[in-house]
Amino acid sequence: MSNDLIILGVDPGLANCGWGIVALTGTKPRALAYGCITTTAKTAEPERLAAIYDGLVAVIGTYRPLELSIETVYHKGNTKSSIATAQARGAALVAAQTRQLLVAEYAPAAIKKAVVGNGSADKAQVQFMVKAVLGLDELPSPDHAADALAAAVCHAHLRKSRSHEKEYIIA
Amino acid sequence: MSNDLIILGVDPGLANCGWGIVALTGTKPRALAYGCITTTAKTAEPERLAAIYDGLVAVIGTYRPLELSIETVYHKGNTKSSIATAQARGAALVAAQTRQLLVAEYAPAAIKKAVVGNGSADKAQVQFMVKAVLGLDELPSPDHAADALAAAVCHAHLRKSRSHEKEYIIA
Repeated sequence: MSNDLIILGVDPGLANCGWGIVALTGTKPRALAYGCITTTAKTAEPERLAAIYDGLVAVIGTYRPLELSIETVYHKGNTKSSIATAQARGAALVAAQTRQLLVAEYAPAAIKKAVVGNGSADKAQVQFMVKAVLGLDELPSPDHAADALAAAVCHAHLRKSRSHEKEYIIA
Repeated sequence: MSNDLIILGVDPGLANCGWGIVALTGTKPRALAYGCITTTAKTAEPERLAAIYDGLVAVIGTYRPLELSIETVYHKGNTKSSIATAQARGAALVAAQTRQLLVAEYAPAAIKKAVVGNGSADKAQVQFMVKAVLGLDELPSPDHAADALAAAVCHAHLRKSRSHEKEYIIA
């Protein structure tokens, strides 16, 4: 138990910020907890960002992860939505960095490829494989939490091969 | 002095995050301090965001502002650059919100209009007017600090007319 590496996975988003805690014993990952920090558009944006920050600080305080695995922001598509996600991601990165976590960043397709074997897998396939790999009794939900667990599993698989690098960024 | 309202202005950016502290006595604003938190691309992004957060937390701790005035992210143009700015803005908003500041957001053009009288004023005009309005001995620099002071001056001018609203967002 004391040799477990605890990894925090985060799927950043302003309305729904998924998180998952995975413990890695040797090469075998298992889920300790997962969830989703939800904020509504009725709340002012700074308060929403602070809720994400505070929520992740609480998760970090409870599970003491040493490493964060987080999705990069998808640049294409809706710019307004990307900017909201980027702000949420900024809040999450500040929570992790100020608590001294090592931060690894992976593009969404890299996470899908590592977990499902297919960079364009859909959400249901990711949920199914996360359940199988982590030995969960049920499909993790909401899908934001499943994506966060997938990020953690991806990092559990790939961290050794990246450990010689100063930064973990897999695009 | 005890009746002064202290306003923090922020011009968010990943490489250069300008800040300015303005004290408002009655309707007259004056500058107490300004500066720029600079990070380089040699540093990992999470560390850069944490430097912005830590820097603004230090400024807030020193000057005890009650209100933050911050530029909104300009959506058009370079998406990659907008996303970097949005992440920095997320870090700044978390610093302010977790310290209980009231947050007012203004579009860049709204700030220029309030300070210069022209929403498409250039950086030199903003610097000149910020110097004049705040009675500074020299042009504030770098321009990121001038833009942050401009955001604070804009809010000093407009806050009364917005004070009945739950959120300050002037687009």
